[in-house]
Amino acid sequence: MPNSFGHIFRITTWGESHGPAIGVVIDGCPPCLPISPAEIQAELDRRRPGQSDITTPRKEADTVEILSGVFEGRTTGTPISLLVRNTDQRSSAYSEMKLAYRPSHADFTYDTKFGIRDPHGGGRSSARETIGRVAGGVFAKKILAAAAPYAGRPATGPVEIRAFITSIHDIVMPSAAAAEFPTLEAVEATPVRCPHALTAAAMIERIKAVRADGDSVGGVIECRVRGLPVGLGEPVFDRLEADLAKAMLSLPATKGFEIGSGFAGTTLRGSEHNDLFENRDGRVRTVTNRSGGTQGGISNGEELVFRVAFKPTATILRNQSTVDLAGHPAEIMGKGRHDPCVVPRAVPIVEAMTALVLLDHWMRDAAQNHTFSF
Amino acid sequence: MPNSFGHIFRITTWGESHGPAIGVVIDGCPPCLPISPAEIQAELDRRRPGQSDITTPRKEADTVEILSGVFEGRTTGTPISLLVRNTDQRSSAYSEMKLAYRPSHADFTYDTKFGIRDPHGGGRSSARETIGRVAGGVFAKKILAAAAPYAGRPATGPVEIRAFITSIHDIVMPSAAAAEFPTLEAVEATPVRCPHALTAAAMIERIKAVRADGDSVGGVIECRVRGLPVGLGEPVFDRLEADLAKAMLSLPATKGFEIGSGFAGTTLRGSEHNDLFENRDGRVRTVTNRSGGTQGGISNGEELVFRVAFKPTATILRNQSTVDLAGHPAEIMGKGRHDPCVVPRAVPIVEAMTALVLLDHWMRDAAQNHTFSF
Amino acid sequence: MPNSFGHIFRITTWGESHGPAIGVVIDGCPPCLPISPAEIQAELDRRRPGQSDITTPRKEADTVEILSGVFEGRTTGTPISLLVRNTDQRSSAYSEMKLAYRPSHADFTYDTKFGIRDPHGGGRSSARETIGRVAGGVFAKKILAAAAPYAGRPATGPVEIRAFITSIHDIVMPSAAAAEFPTLEAVEATPVRCPHALTAAAMIERIKAVRADGDSVGGVIECRVRGLPVGLGEPVFDRLEADLAKAMLSLPATKGFEIGSGFAGTTLRGSEHNDLFENRDGRVRTVTNRSGGTQGGISNGEELVFRVAFKPTATILRNQSTVDLAGHPAEIMGKGRHDPCVVPRAVPIVEAMTALVLLDHWMRDAAQNHTFSF
Amino acid sequence: MPNSFGHIFRITTWGESHGPAIGVVIDGCPPCLPISPAEIQAELDRRRPGQSDITTPRKEADTVEILSGVFEGRTTGTPISLLVRNTDQRSSAYSEMKLAYRPSHADFTYDTKFGIRDPHGGGRSSARETIGRVAGGVFAKKILAAAAPYAGRPATGPVEIRAFITSIHDIVMPSAAAAEFPTLEAVEATPVRCPHALTAAAMIERIKAVRADGDSVGGVIECRVRGLPVGLGEPVFDRLEADLAKAMLSLPATKGFEIGSGFAGTTLRGSEHNDLFENRDGRVRTVTNRSGGTQGGISNGEELVFRVAFKPTATILRNQSTVDLAGHPAEIMGKGRHDPCVVPRAVPIVEAMTALVLLDHWMRDAAQNHTFSF
Repeated sequence: MPNSFGHIFRITTWGESHGPAIGVVIDGCPPCLPISPAEIQAELDRRRPGQSDITTPRKEADTVEILSGVFEGRTTGTPISLLVRNTDQRSSAYSEMKLAYRPSHADFTYDTKFGIRDPHGGGRSSARETIGRVAGGVFAKKILAAAAPYAGRPATGPVEIRAFITSIHDIVMPSAAAAEFPTLEAVEATPVRCPHALTAAAMIERIKAVRADGDSVGGVIECRVRGLPVGLGEPVFDRLEADLAKAMLSLPATKGFEIGSGFAGTTLRGSEHNDLFENRDGRVRTVTNRSGGTQGGISNGEELVFRVAFKPTATILRNQSTVDLAGHPAEIMGKGRHDPCVVPRAVPIVEAMTALVLLDHWMRDAAQNHTFSF
Repeated sequence: MPNSFGHIFRITTWGESHGPAIGVVIDGCPPCLPISPAEIQAELDRRRPGQSDITTPRKEADTVEILSGVFEGRTTGTPISLLVRNTDQRSSAYSEMKLAYRPSHADFTYDTKFGIRDPHGGGRSSARETIGRVAGGVFAKKILAAAAPYAGRPATGPVEIRAFITSIHDIVMPSAAAAEFPTLEAVEATPVRCPHALTAAAMIERIKAVRADGDSVGGVIECRVRGLPVGLGEPVFDRLEADLAKAMLSLPATKGFEIGSGFAGTTLRGSEHNDLFENRDGRVRTVTNRSGGTQGGISNGEELVFRVAFKPTATILRNQSTVDLAGHPAEIMGKGRHDPCVVPRAVPIVEAMTALVLLDHWMRDAAQNHTFSF
Repeated sequence: MPNSFGHIFRITTWGESHGPAIGVVIDGCPPCLPISPAEIQAELDRRRPGQSDITTPRKEADTVEILSGVFEGRTTGTPISLLVRNTDQRSSAYSEMKLAYRPSHADFTYDTKFGIRDPHGGGRSSARETIGRVAGGVFAKKILAAAAPYAGRPATGPVEIRAFITSIHDIVMPSAAAAEFPTLEAVEATPVRCPHALTAAAMIERIKAVRADGDSVGGVIECRVRGLPVGLGEPVFDRLEADLAKAMLSLPATKGFEIGSGFAGTTLRGSEHNDLFENRDGRVRTVTNRSGGTQGGISNGEELVFRVAFKPTATILRNQSTVDLAGHPAEIMGKGRHDPCVVPRAVPIVEAMTALVLLDHWMRDAAQNHTFSF
Repeated sequence: MPNSFGHIFRITTWGESHGPAIGVVIDGCPPCLPISPAEIQAELDRRRPGQSDITTPRKEADTVEILSGVFEGRTTGTPISLLVRNTDQRSSAYSEMKLAYRPSHADFTYDTKFGIRDPHGGGRSSARETIGRVAGGVFAKKILAAAAPYAGRPATGPVEIRAFITSIHDIVMPSAAAAEFPTLEAVEATPVRCPHALTAAAMIERIKAVRADGDSVGGVIECRVRGLPVGLGEPVFDRLEADLAKAMLSLPATKGFEIGSGFAGTTLRGSEHNDLFENRDGRVRTVTNRSGGTQGGISNGEELVFRVAFKPTATILRNQSTVDLAGHPAEIMGKGRHDPCVVPRAVPIVEAMTALVLLDHWMRDAAQNHTFSF
């Protein structure tokens, strides 16, 4: 149960970073969706290590294999099992982890919770686990992109999900540049996935400088969705932003989530913050979008806009004091090939989780509100 | 399903703000817990309207009735049904809502989603719905408070949950004052529930000034928990912070959640952000707590520290432009007796949701990790 | 969770037989369904005690109150809370239960499981709990009855659910009479709810004779559903018959479930048992219906036909040996006003549970298979 | 969701009979359980085709691979992924299924539900799907077998689950022989898994005779469990027998479930049916066991006894009339190597599903009733 996500469109992920393989089972996928291994691979490649000179140089092909639920290139409505073999299995490279707990890693908490731990790499808490999420997200994204003409609820356009980096360390993209919905091309133009070229260049420089120091940095990802219908979200507990917040905080290294005006909105007065309604383009619209695309936990047809905070990578190539497994003082020195900044590779993961939440909500809304009418 | 929260200890809330009643069903409560209506009432009174001169003057007794699951003052393990009658039922006071959509309220999205809407007050999206959450939280809080000596996992002390206000509008409590775990007395000393007396006074003044303007303000609530054991949290999706984020974003008027270093943590380097381990008080501790009490989604025995952003109340006593139900331009003027700032009344609600998350996670952890051993 | 049933259309029941009230919360109900308290009451009256001279003479009005989720006679899509006050609260009539465990009742198992027990009547294990199920079933039945013209999947006619008694003790309705889909009028023609008049008369006589003996009898209910579309059922675990079996075995006093050919079908050869396909009435039909309306766990458009076994009522007006709460030998004598046979009153309960299963499955099928198409 | 089973200890199965592989993900498994591939293999071999001269001669090695969740021979608390490659992949052997619907098979209902179908073998509705269930059951069985000394609730002995065949076609094991709890050796003594040697011989002869006819037969499996504690079962909906009934009816080819006295119990009077309590062996026991091990949906410490009806195999080597995919009359002739009777191979599957239900209920009971005490 803790390794499953979604109610109707549900993924179950499994696998350790240095075990034989990583995978996902997708249950509840609509049938007849055309899908190819190449489409899944393309998105996995966006999160793959070794994709650029600012990520870890570790090479993993992350080749996906479809084991069930797809027949002659189309989904069959039965569970879809996807498998990625780990080429870099339980090696001796991580032997220092067997002796001491890495600061701000999950070694200590996993060890205490379960009383046992795979000491090779991050085990289950590794970001490699997100391979299954991204693979599941490919199906969700593709269904949403095709949703406009089909669904019971009219979408307000083609559904597009776009995540991008707005800050790395203290380098922040100008807010003017963030005003527009960025193109995929602008996001993918640089390995740092900030659509503002000048800012991106500064971010890349900072990441390289930090890496040279053996240190690490974090940043903020913004995600926007346009084309959604009015009506997605299941109050009172499964509000759309509540499920998005959960999805984002379920990702490794995340420390915060905000939607629309977010924390800054707490410094406005109601008269400044309220989104007035108007009739625009023949439908009910809001003049501003401080709500960030939902009201009362339900999408209102405006752009969905939220941000996710990622802490600096815990693994640094420096000596740190810690304790060993017996609780005695020890020192640990990060080795190996790590990302000085995981945020660029998290962009496709944020998009995948967003797609999973939106699709599941769309299906739930349809079940209650579009199956029967009176 | 959307109106249920929790996996093993589960609450299901129901009721509209101006319907006959509001209530909650609690399923999975451990048996033999001593409980009295007075204990539930005391906590409901903390969120009740009319409790001070900075909340709405509307009076609701919010008297709770126990309908099942309790026998001779102790829970029986069967579902507990709690009922609060609305004394202020479907009145004509809200007739303006029948004609036009209130800006930044849920009128429009509910109407579109369901095709029907109770136009009296906020209906289901009203904060009155949280009565059931607070009532359910009373049971969870009491169980957690008694947990230390009983549970399979040793707690690190008596479990205490304390929420309090750190900012209202642009008035922020000094961070030095926030360093200590506030006492309940300090929090409850003023109606604004900020434990720093000077800041509280300024906040109250601001709320009154804003109300005089017919306007509203928001703020930030911090919640801390101490005494938790190491080991609560169910990765990869049901990480402790993920479920807390969902719980908080499921509350009306919330726009953000952050844990530990949060958004500010994205501007630190890894070498500045990492929490080093040490042996303190005979157990493994972290020197700092930028993690906010969890690592890898599992509690690490340090204080749980998170913050929730609340937007300014949407209802203001000013004329606002909007559209009517047919989509034509209209004007709407907030009437009636509203809170100029809902944040002080949200403090017990944040505590209740926190207790619900923690108790459910404790029970889930026990099921997997303390039922059988090998 | 154990007191909730269904995934999308979900009921949560609560209440003890001699507590203040009994009730149900219905979540996920489609909006805009016209519903009146009278409709709910009519079905509650079918299961009410004191309705005829073969049931307990105990009188309970079982008057239902709608507390939420309905506005001006139509459902609003928000949770529906229904309440029935117990007029016959914790009396002294059951004092013997405080001292000793009633044979084949749940006193001993509840007491051991929870360590506490409401000793007045059956508490939560009483058949009074099914009031909430029947009330929830009213909504499900009405939606299904209206489903034919609306749903994504074409029904094969108006959906009708008909349960009736085929045997009481060793009195069995002739199989020839069971071949036709009975009318509601035929079922309700006698208080025993067997549509075959001669058999019904013999059953009534037997029940009266057994009651005169201070004894009790059980029987078998058959339930049939016609008008269903092809396609309901969610393999591999949530097969339609699996969820029906669970629903039926969740009722008090049930000991068995069989669908189609059932246990008798195990004595046929495959060549005798297989349902051959043919084209009839312009669609794919089976010539016979030994499958009972499902194949591979999915409805096949034929009549759904299943049977449920009810044991004789455990409460008898005779002296029985047992043990007291300390485990010492004791005697217990059933007192009060009990049903010598609960099966006739179980007929509307079986129908209600069937409706709940079918509606939930229809909504689940729609979510996966009719929300998006490619 | 439809391909997952269990709440805390949960399995998710995937795979088609002629796809690349079949598998299962187990979530919620207690950590530190010693487990080897050989143990899993041994149980898979009990359900494997080609194991004896009364099953299909088709050979599948069904070799299991552990992909995650196990480290150095012990479970780690993270999800366990198990994989079995299909050696007999999408062949041309089943080309007749592409053209016409096999009677009493799921071809027609799957095709209609999903609008697409893998026409090679039974696809997802094949009994090969149960490989994942049996593999998951190995873990559950082993945990239960070790449960006695550990769990919060004292077991009444070592927990043993024993399924066996009581009838094949019209050959029924003598009831006197069924009175004792059969040994595993007696069950496994013959390939038909009936512990009564003379009956087993007759059953084998019948199966061979029927196969020679190109026909098939069904039968009844009884399952017994001893050693359970009092207290397993979660009323009102998740009664132990309700979840067992669902588990059994979720298996291919099942048509009925009964517990204790079952359908035959409906012909007894209450005075004949009631299980009187006595003090035996120092604890509360029932003199008889017509209840079959549960009262009020909760285990009562007596032997759990239930029976499952399996219809005759649908595939027969005879010409049968049917319709083609366009609905036109057609004929179909079963080919290939099929089991004339699937019941013997279903014995380990029934045991596996029983273990899954019992373990999940034990963990749920512990969560509510043994995590906190007052």
